[in-house]
Order: sequence, then C-alpha cells, then structure tokens
Amino acid sequence: MLEQINGGVTAPKGYKANGIHCGIRANKSKKDLALVVSEKRAAAAAVYTTNLVQGAPIAVCREHLADGYAQAMICNSGIANTCAQGGKEAAEAMCRLVEEHTGVSAADVIVASTGVIGQPLNVEPIKQGMPALVDGLSTDSTAAAEGIMTTDTHRKETAVVFTIGGKRCVIGGMAKGSGMIHPNMATMLVFLTTDCAITPAMLQKALSADIQDTFNMVSVDGDTSTNDMVSIMANGLAGNPVIDSEGADFDTFKAALRQLTTYLCRQIAGDGEGATKLLECRVAGAKDTDTAKRVAKAVICSSLTKSAMFGADANWGRVLCAIGYAGVPVNIAKTAVSFKSAAGEICVCQNGEGIPFSEEQAKKILLEDEIEIIIALQDGEGAASAWGCDLTYDYVKINGDYRT
Amino acid sequence: MLEQINGGVTAPKGYKANGIHCGIRANKSKKDLALVVSEKRAAAAAVYTTNLVQGAPIAVCREHLADGYAQAMICNSGIANTCAQGGKEAAEAMCRLVEEHTGVSAADVIVASTGVIGQPLNVEPIKQGMPALVDGLSTDSTAAAEGIMTTDTHRKETAVVFTIGGKRCVIGGMAKGSGMIHPNMATMLVFLTTDCAITPAMLQKALSADIQDTFNMVSVDGDTSTNDMVSIMANGLAGNPVIDSEGADFDTFKAALRQLTTYLCRQIAGDGEGATKLLECRVAGAKDTDTAKRVAKAVICSSLTKSAMFGADANWGRVLCAIGYAGVPVNIAKTAVSFKSAAGEICVCQNGEGIPFSEEQAKKILLEDEIEIIIALQDGEGAASAWGCDLTYDYVKINGDYRT
Repeated sequence: MLEQINGGVTAPKGYKANGIHCGIRANKSKKDLALVVSEKRAAAAAVYTTNLVQGAPIAVCREHLADGYAQAMICNSGIANTCAQGGKEAAEAMCRLVEEHTGVSAADVIVASTGVIGQPLNVEPIKQGMPALVDGLSTDSTAAAEGIMTTDTHRKETAVVFTIGGKRCVIGGMAKGSGMIHPNMATMLVFLTTDCAITPAMLQKALSADIQDTFNMVSVDGDTSTNDMVSIMANGLAGNPVIDSEGADFDTFKAALRQLTTYLCRQIAGDGEGATKLLECRVAGAKDTDTAKRVAKAVICSSLTKSAMFGADANWGRVLCAIGYAGVPVNIAKTAVSFKSAAGEICVCQNGEGIPFSEEQAKKILLEDEIEIIIALQDGEGAASAWGCDLTYDYVKINGDYRT
Repeated sequence: MLEQINGGVTAPKGYKANGIHCGIRANKSKKDLALVVSEKRAAAAAVYTTNLVQGAPIAVCREHLADGYAQAMICNSGIANTCAQGGKEAAEAMCRLVEEHTGVSAADVIVASTGVIGQPLNVEPIKQGMPALVDGLSTDSTAAAEGIMTTDTHRKETAVVFTIGGKRCVIGGMAKGSGMIHPNMATMLVFLTTDCAITPAMLQKALSADIQDTFNMVSVDGDTSTNDMVSIMANGLAGNPVIDSEGADFDTFKAALRQLTTYLCRQIAGDGEGATKLLECRVAGAKDTDTAKRVAKAVICSSLTKSAMFGADANWGRVLCAIGYAGVPVNIAKTAVSFKSAAGEICVCQNGEGIPFSEEQAKKILLEDEIEIIIALQDGEGAASAWGCDLTYDYVKINGDYRT
C-alpha cells in the first residue's frame, strides 16, 4: 500500500479549488458549484457514460479534451443539464466564465453537471457566483468536494503519494456518488488531479484500464447515469521524468491511481442513496476474469440480496440465485458462499447447498457496516470484486420525491 | 375480448382442486399445499426458469412431461426445495403421494415448490396432509390458488371462454407472484388448465410463444427466480376437434391463452412485493419488436423510475435515462414520454426534451393505482408492453427479514 494522505484534488502541487452556493439549488446550506484550477496547463484524460442519453456537458468535454490537455474543471450540482433546451450553450457558457475570471482558455476547461434531468440550467447564478468562487480558490479542497455533492451524505476525497524517478508525486481526487450509480464503461462524477508528468496518451491509457476494475464494478441501484464521467489532469509539477511509455514508472502510476480510485469506489458504494452498509462481493476461482466480474456485479445488483443485507439476514439463497442468473457459466455444484466483516467470517453454503451455521453468529457479522460476500467457484483463476450497498427504506424515501 | 369468467384452474371441465395448511409454514392461517387433478390424462406443456440454479422439482417436471402428458399438479409453498440436500427425492416423494391418494400415476404429476431457498423440504407434513387435501378436492379453485401463495397479498386466478368447432372451451389458471420476479424465457409459478383438445406439441408451441410477450415481460425486482415455471394441462373434455396444426382453431386457442396470461401478468405485477401500484410501460414506434421489448423492460426495471412512481413524482428524466441504457439503438432526439391513468394522460417529454406541463395534473394522474408509462420512439413499427410495480418501503421491509 502506498501512503494515503488527507486532502483531495489540491493535494498534488499546483492545484487550487473552491466550492460555493451560487443559487442553483434552493437550499442555501448546500453548495452547488465547484472549481479546480491548475497553475499549469495539464495533460488530461476522461471516460464517459455509455448511456445513449448524455448530459450536454459531456459533448463539450469531449471537444475540449480532444487535444489531450486541460487546465480547469468546473462542476455544478442541482441541475444535470441533460435533456433540456439550451444545454450545450449553457455548458459552453460555464467554460467561458472560467476563462473570463481565471484566464484559463475556455477550450481547456472540463465541465460537468449533476442533479435533476430535464430541467434547463440557468447560467445566471453561476455568473453571479464566479467572483466569489475564484476569490476563494485555495489549497483546501473541502469546499470543492462539497460543491459536487447531490444526495451524498458526506464528501468523498483522498490522495495517494508515490515516487517516480526519485521525485515525490501525489495523485488526489474527489467523487460524487449516491444514486443512479451503475457505471458502464465509464462512471459517476470523479475529478482526479496529479502533479506527475505523464503524456496525455499514457494518462488516458491508465485511466481507461483502471475504471474497468474500479468504478465499473460499483452499483448502487442499477441505473447508469446520463452524466457519468471520470476526468484527470496531470500538470507535471512534481518534476519527474515524463512517463511516455509502458514500464516500471507507468506501473507505479497505475498502482497509485488504483489505490485512489478503489478508495473512492468504496466511498461511493458505502454512501449510496439510503445505504446503511457497504457491500463488497469478492469472487475467486472463476473460469476467467469476465466471469468473475459478471458474477460479482450480479450479486451486488440483486435487490433481494441488498434487502437481506439491510436486515442483516444471512439469506444466502439469494446470493446463489443471483449467481445463477448472471448469464455466465458457473458450476453451482462447486460453489461456496461466506459472509465476512469486522465481527468474523462464516461459511453458509458449500457445493451449492446450505450447510449448518450459527444464525446468531451470522447476524453478528451482518450487523457491521462493511460486509464482504465471498464467493468461491472452484473453476479456475478468475477473480474480481464489486462494490455496492444495501437497499433501505431511505433509498425509496429519497427517490420517491427527489425533485422537491 | 373473449368472455372472462370467475374461477381458475377448475373452470374448465374435468378438473378438481384443493389447498390446505399442512405444516410446512409455521403460520397456521397460511395454506401451504395445493393440488389440481384432471379426471382424464391430459396433454401437457411447461416452460422453466433459465437460472442456472434450479429448484429440484424442475428436474422432476422435465422428466414427467417428456412424454407430453400429465394428469395432476401438486405445489407446496414455504420451502422452495432448492439448493438443499435430498431435493429431488422430496419432489419425487410428493409425486408418489399423489399416486397413492388419487390413483394418478406419479409419472403424470407436475410438481412445484416455492419459498425459502436452501432449506431442506420435509415431506412428512405433506404426507400427513394428503388425506385432507384429496378429500377436499372440488370444483372450487379458491383454496388451491391460496395454497401456492408466498408473500402474495391475494390469490390470482381467472378463466377465459372460447369456442372451437362449435364447442364451448374454457381455459383457466392461477399464479403465484410477489418477489424474485424477473422471468427470463420462463416465469414465476403459473398453473393453467383447459378442457380444449389439443396435441402436446401444439400446446407447447402455444405456451412457448405466449410467454415471450406475457410473463417474460414482467419484472417486480429484477431477480430471476430459481423455481419459475408455467405449466398447462389440456384434458380435451370440451369435445372439440383436436387442434393438431396451425390454423384458425390454433389462433383462437392462442388468443384465449393470451387473454388469460395477460390478466395473470397484471395481477402478478400489481401485487409485487410491497407494491402500491401496477406499472405498465407501453413502447411504440421502435425499430423492431426486440428493441421495443428491451426498452419497455429497462423502464419497468429501473429502481429510480419505480421509486418516483411510488412518490407519484413525474420525474420523466429517469424514464429517459433507462431508455438510454437499455442497450438497443434508440434516437433519443425523437423520443416522447407520457403518463396515463384513470385520471387522464399527460405528455411530459417530446423530442428527448422536457416540455412544460402541469405538475398538479401529473400528480393527480400518478396517484392512481394503475399507471401507464407511454413511450413513442418514432423510429419504426415495433411495439411491446412490460409490467412491473413501484418500489416501496414495504418491499424493503418484506425482504429485509424474509426468512423469519
């Protein structure tokens, strides 16, 4: 494990950030606008949702990142700027406002929005808020991490330290999760920064590979968002030799990225809408990695398994049921299931059949906040983990009347 | 529409049924065993779950129906007889008990179980209950329809009248739904009977085609059950010329079957675990039927859409989001969405963007018990309907501690 430190997007050298309430959200105690600026133009990369319905900011980001560089990120919460008139114009206006107030070229701005789909985004509050947003830019990333939250109950940020060519590098990030979380080849909103020097091509390569095992293995509710995006800027201020090819340095960078994104995944899953528990499904012994991933994802997505975990009920039949409909070849007669947490580990199913176990001990294990569902398939070397959360009354409450 | 009459599996000539509490379930007020017997050996057909995990009764049914004939159906609730030792032996023992007490050959018995997965089925209470079960056989199907219920809040049965070759034929059926409902090329537990004369091959053909547009288009919670099955017996007592090929008579039979199964689908969806509303998603103008089906199914399965419907919140962005991740080609820019119920109809989205609408009127429409989500894709002639229900506090409550 690499050293993990406090902070987020401003932990690497040369980044400042801020977040404010500008008036997009009615509740004045909720921040709704965040900005991250690098003092130097940075290599940049991103991955996007595969939903056919895409937020207007996504199209603008694609254009701005086509050359592999960016210098700032702006994100509002409250309105998703998706499926509403004037969406692209609003996203472009946000980038121009960043240029006017910071000097960063509009073409080097990563723009994102999150919130209600289908309502037009009024740029006026953002315009009014820009002076305060820019004045408050600092190396404290707290306000920015709060500015991108919707139904998240806490901000999600961290940073990881690594060394390339003798130089101390830092990679930091912040995420917004909570609902409509079921990434598919892309993910929710995540903004990453690093002071490591790396080419745009290698940065994109590292990010695209990483998300397959991290953000794409998270599901809160099975709904792939229209605005999912992970972006990263690398401004090179650490002074390391530029990473421009595969090799030991690239591997170190990827390891730091993986540690950061895995941490953010767990944060997103554990703070899923209404969640009381983080669930991690760990599959081993699958025929191949794809089989392991699909099994882990099916279990994490099963409403019945999620409800049972909420009730701390060791109803492993639902886990087996989900394995059975995952759509991949599994030998059920060789399958074992265990539950694990800080309170211990208990095997409840072997060779596809229930075995006697202490319901009392199982209950104790499942009452913890972080639960591992461990599946052994005894069919090969494929392994994967997926992260999710329990399904609770509060998920229904939050989503029964989200718009008001 | 054909004439629909009261009753269920005993509405056709020559069938008797009964249901009792024999002791598999702890709650004595809940029936847990049902039996249907035809006075004549009948052509029979069935479709089964595609879950890799399959209840033990499914294997026994496959063997017994291999010759295309059956004469009785027995089903217990409380224990699914799945993933537990001695499952096949228990299912076979149930069939032998039917032979001992009714004279119907064990090889002509359709056997099913529904309930908790992973616990062994004790046949002893069934054995003790057989005399009372058989003594009470009558043309009143109420007790049998109650005997197959688990978390269903009411029994589900009906019958449809049709005419073949001048003879009055009747097809009846009963269903058990509620949770773990997301059929995939098969379905939940449904038992159908008819007095129509039809060959086993044509009966299987009619059933296999029918479920593609009926039970396979229902989802309560996205979890495909391990014990899903629809079976049908046709004893020929109506005296019509045997249907042994395609043609007008076969079409009439299929229409009667469709009316019956569509009714049962709506009953299953509307009584989904915790449901307060039946949702029907009707898609028109798709490129083809498969596209329409996948869009309809994605919307019906979306937890966010289901939660919004529970809250009577016209959050159509979630409908559009689900269309976008359905995995089929759709031109979002041409897509329109409306909500409809007994209180009226309101269009909320046109050409992929929100249009002004009265929130008050939308609320009034969505407060009804049966809601239609109508999607127009303007891209072809493909159309399909899917049925589901809202996601509620009670779904979580029921499934948080199902086993106790």
